[in-house]
Amino acid sequence: MNPVSVPQVSIKDEFWAPRQSLVRDVVVPYQWEALNDLIPGAEPSGTIANFRAAAGEREASHHGFVFQDSDLAKWLETVGFVLQAKRDEALEKLADEAIDLIGRAQQSDGYLDTYYQLQKPGEQWTNVRDDHEMYNAGHFMEAAVAYYEATGKPKVLDILCKFANHIVDVFGPGEGQKPGYCGHPEIELALVKLYRLTGNVAYLETSKFFVDERGKEPNYFDVELARRREAGKKERVDRRKMAYFQAHAPIREQQTAEGHAVRAVYLFAGATDIADEYDDASLLDAVRSLWNNTVQKRMYVTGGIGSSDSFEAFSFDYDLPNERAYAETCASIGLMNWGHRLLQIEADSKYADTMERTLYNGLLSGISLDGRSYFYVNPLEVWPVISGKRDDIPGATLRRQPWFGCACCPPNIARLIASLGKYIYSANENELYVHLYIGSQVTQDIGGRQVTVSQQTNYPWDGAVGIRIETEAPTEFTIALRLPAWCRRAQLRVNGQRIDPVLSTERGYVKINREWQKGDSIELDMEMRVELVRSHPELREAAGKVAVQRGPVVYCMEETDNGDNLRDVQLSSEASFFGKYEPNLLNGVYVLASDDGWRTEASSVTDDLYVAKRYGKVPASLRFVPYYAWANRSEGEMSVWVRERETAAN
Amino acid sequence: MNPVSVPQVSIKDEFWAPRQSLVRDVVVPYQWEALNDLIPGAEPSGTIANFRAAAGEREASHHGFVFQDSDLAKWLETVGFVLQAKRDEALEKLADEAIDLIGRAQQSDGYLDTYYQLQKPGEQWTNVRDDHEMYNAGHFMEAAVAYYEATGKPKVLDILCKFANHIVDVFGPGEGQKPGYCGHPEIELALVKLYRLTGNVAYLETSKFFVDERGKEPNYFDVELARRREAGKKERVDRRKMAYFQAHAPIREQQTAEGHAVRAVYLFAGATDIADEYDDASLLDAVRSLWNNTVQKRMYVTGGIGSSDSFEAFSFDYDLPNERAYAETCASIGLMNWGHRLLQIEADSKYADTMERTLYNGLLSGISLDGRSYFYVNPLEVWPVISGKRDDIPGATLRRQPWFGCACCPPNIARLIASLGKYIYSANENELYVHLYIGSQVTQDIGGRQVTVSQQTNYPWDGAVGIRIETEAPTEFTIALRLPAWCRRAQLRVNGQRIDPVLSTERGYVKINREWQKGDSIELDMEMRVELVRSHPELREAAGKVAVQRGPVVYCMEETDNGDNLRDVQLSSEASFFGKYEPNLLNGVYVLASDDGWRTEASSVTDDLYVAKRYGKVPASLRFVPYYAWANRSEGEMSVWVRERETAAN
Repeated sequence: MNPVSVPQVSIKDEFWAPRQSLVRDVVVPYQWEALNDLIPGAEPSGTIANFRAAAGEREASHHGFVFQDSDLAKWLETVGFVLQAKRDEALEKLADEAIDLIGRAQQSDGYLDTYYQLQKPGEQWTNVRDDHEMYNAGHFMEAAVAYYEATGKPKVLDILCKFANHIVDVFGPGEGQKPGYCGHPEIELALVKLYRLTGNVAYLETSKFFVDERGKEPNYFDVELARRREAGKKERVDRRKMAYFQAHAPIREQQTAEGHAVRAVYLFAGATDIADEYDDASLLDAVRSLWNNTVQKRMYVTGGIGSSDSFEAFSFDYDLPNERAYAETCASIGLMNWGHRLLQIEADSKYADTMERTLYNGLLSGISLDGRSYFYVNPLEVWPVISGKRDDIPGATLRRQPWFGCACCPPNIARLIASLGKYIYSANENELYVHLYIGSQVTQDIGGRQVTVSQQTNYPWDGAVGIRIETEAPTEFTIALRLPAWCRRAQLRVNGQRIDPVLSTERGYVKINREWQKGDSIELDMEMRVELVRSHPELREAAGKVAVQRGPVVYCMEETDNGDNLRDVQLSSEASFFGKYEPNLLNGVYVLASDDGWRTEASSVTDDLYVAKRYGKVPASLRFVPYYAWANRSEGEMSVWVRERETAAN
Repeated sequence: MNPVSVPQVSIKDEFWAPRQSLVRDVVVPYQWEALNDLIPGAEPSGTIANFRAAAGEREASHHGFVFQDSDLAKWLETVGFVLQAKRDEALEKLADEAIDLIGRAQQSDGYLDTYYQLQKPGEQWTNVRDDHEMYNAGHFMEAAVAYYEATGKPKVLDILCKFANHIVDVFGPGEGQKPGYCGHPEIELALVKLYRLTGNVAYLETSKFFVDERGKEPNYFDVELARRREAGKKERVDRRKMAYFQAHAPIREQQTAEGHAVRAVYLFAGATDIADEYDDASLLDAVRSLWNNTVQKRMYVTGGIGSSDSFEAFSFDYDLPNERAYAETCASIGLMNWGHRLLQIEADSKYADTMERTLYNGLLSGISLDGRSYFYVNPLEVWPVISGKRDDIPGATLRRQPWFGCACCPPNIARLIASLGKYIYSANENELYVHLYIGSQVTQDIGGRQVTVSQQTNYPWDGAVGIRIETEAPTEFTIALRLPAWCRRAQLRVNGQRIDPVLSTERGYVKINREWQKGDSIELDMEMRVELVRSHPELREAAGKVAVQRGPVVYCMEETDNGDNLRDVQLSSEASFFGKYEPNLLNGVYVLASDDGWRTEASSVTDDLYVAKRYGKVPASLRFVPYYAWANRSEGEMSVWVRERETAAN
């Protein structure tokens, strides 16, 4: 039996717990103000105003994007996760008011979308390619599940089930139904969540329909477009291809990850759920190949995906430009969610390795240390001189922004952090998997008995993890501990007794089966060396370069520590590093320094742009900080990859 | 006294003479057909048709760009140069017919511009920012001078003087005159040419006015725009900045080369002429700083300039991306022309070094070996997988195109090749400068006597140059031979007697003063080693890389010789090369091979995108061909810069 993600986990550590508090105490209130247009200087959101107008409580046209509603949904979902950890009357009151407002805005037939209700009444479901109605619906369904699970209050669940019932009626293969699907996948995975909570199989079936129907010929978006044209609607010429909407081919026929990266991975996550629920081997095979293509050929070392600024898309195998990286924060979140689903099916540490790579790097970089500003785009290198000045470099990459007009990333990263506990463990009736090392506590029924497992660790700065088991009575089960790919050597002790982890490792997990007793302990000590990471030789942008990684954390150089012209810097193949935890730097980070850097000797440089000589080189002291923490000090250059100075024979 | 360019030079060598024949026998007839819309498959030009319509000989609206007329002008100028080398009755007949047509199209007031005459009669000179009337005029003036100098026929000169007189009347500081200047510089240098031929000082004064007035406040283009708006004209919003039009600041206040590269260097060339004619030290200083900025911070190793695809512009110091290089062929031509003018003033070899760098590399790459297809854009690296597929890589860079809708480059490179003789020598009454080593012959009055000097060389493949002097009678004068920057060691013999060239070198020229007699000979042997060229450390795109150069020729790797993934290739710092002239390859090139290349060992590569190990490396045999000759075989990757494998101590 597959282990299933354990949702009720409380995080108690130095790294994530403060970030969860930040989400609760700063981000959620801040975002609520943003939704209510109360933040001076930020682009107005209009989200709550739209709902009030749709509820008939004020006169106004719709403000913002067609997917503006989803900002409220993501906020509400975050609130749900926050309340799962700890009820909070004041916050719940806010959320209940928002839920009441959502309920008042909902049509009697269950339909709910303020854009259509205000701007195009009666035209609902005529442009599912562009207008995100089901995308918004999906986010509300996720929110409803989270909020219900936190509070047990049925109202928001009722609202969303009513909307889901409407969608189930409208879409499907039956006569009078529309064989359509949303241009932005999301509802696929959301309907599965709603099914898992309510047991209503219709939700699962409709999700499966969406997954299977998508990309078939005749293409629904073409059919729909023709219908709009017949109805006399003017449509602008659209440069976006069907892959952008994940409608270029049925998912089972896709070999490579194409199109808009967020849409792609949201679909793949939903399809993974469907493969799981239906035990659908061919669908699982398709999803697996897409995963392999993504992580083996189209993912940054930071776990960022969707390298192209042009339509926020996957581009080509090994096309991962550093300065021009798009690598949207939402795409990293989607990748983590997708990997998490595959992990439940296969329990292979490779999925958790990628989740972790994303989590500590290209995803976490999306939010500032103070929780008040956000990156959409997560480049691996910036040169401020040209950033935002040349058309081919995505702009605004030097500083995180307070809130975006198109505000997908800020609430998305908030809900990810708030729900992080769910990603740590999985369990079935006789196994408990530890996927992520995060100080936390979980109580779970295993083998018919309540077992409490707690982790203590200074991860990601230290590879030592202490696990303590509490059981009602001695219980036989397996604890499976992930051995991360970054770890070359680990020591394992059970109640002080040394065990060779390699002997009992299965798909990257050390499995310890025994009769566990109250007070049993496991000590896992993963050697956390500084590693110089090289890329596959086809990854041209990293040719001849190394990335500095320690544990799951990818490092970067910033100008404020290393001066400018970081392309001139070299790091020796055999570089030594001095590491130190600095509690007052960047909210506490483990900093790496090396004296094995090199730079061009200034005195050997002339005014000549090209010379037929070798410049002199001088040693340079370099300092590396975690990539996720970049751009929290002064503006300047940043680079993840550093040129390797090859020393000793290869 | 400054030496002045010697125009009447006949080229007799293995490298350029065939290219001049190609221009005469293939390019000129081909381009004539193009101008007449007779080339199947090419975009129609409409140029001749426009003139016929303007002459009232057919009914038609104007076809093509506002600067379409200039294509005919450049063709005619090329014909002038071709006829300077050798009269040709049939070609002259074609040209005379074209000239007659131009004359019939000209208005009685001297104005001539088919776009305005056909599309906007009566509105001439209302949008000099955009509409290129004086740009076209300038090219016709250059053509008139060239054709007159070839044939002595006054007709085209009369037509253009009449047009020039009209411009002199319309533009200037006087009452009732317009204080404007053309959005695309060109007429500045053309008026100086016309002045030098006719002696009419008004042309020189108007050119000086254009140079001085440009960029002053209130900006003429704004004034003019306001006037058009007042007249009720609708103007689209324009993203181009004043720098694009070289109107952001008076040239004397400019510190860096900005804006559209072709416009910039055409202006700088004209301004250099004005500085020369008026002995204007402050203008010369300004032009010198702009030159230094260009060649020390904004020029590719190929001599390409204008790195940004966005508005075909200079971007920032040291911003010279390889794949995304724009480096328009016309900009290289402009750079060469500008350098040539500075060279006449200063006789410093640094100008000739840059001219030569451009000529043999980023300029010559603009034309295919068969003379039938052309590059606008001259990248230093291509990866066909993404070329033209990603928005940030300028398209159509893998193959030269037969003729462009916007056909500035093809006729421009033709006229450059046809007139190449003029760039080789300069002379004053007691000096003869040899700037370029090209097998050729020149006859010139020096010291009151006719002197004929002939060069024999296999340049650029061989650094040995033989010079033979013929004089009517023994004559004392100086022969100044350029010692190229690429040359580390040269041997010099006069009539077999060895001379140390270093002892008599001035600003990069060995000066040999003596009484020259008929039959005297000079042997200059410049050691032509393969050099590994490194860039200034601020040039980020070339950090850790070398370019292979031999003599003036910059080499590249092509996929057809070296396989793909050229970013994986390394070349040892101390690489040895085997060079060989291959007469049947690429119309005869000196090919370089090295066994000191390295590649990643295939067996050490896994499916992993990132690994914490060093890949194995294996030696690789590499083959380099001249950059100018790339893309004349099968499509594939190309790279000028190759990663340096640092061997031995630095």
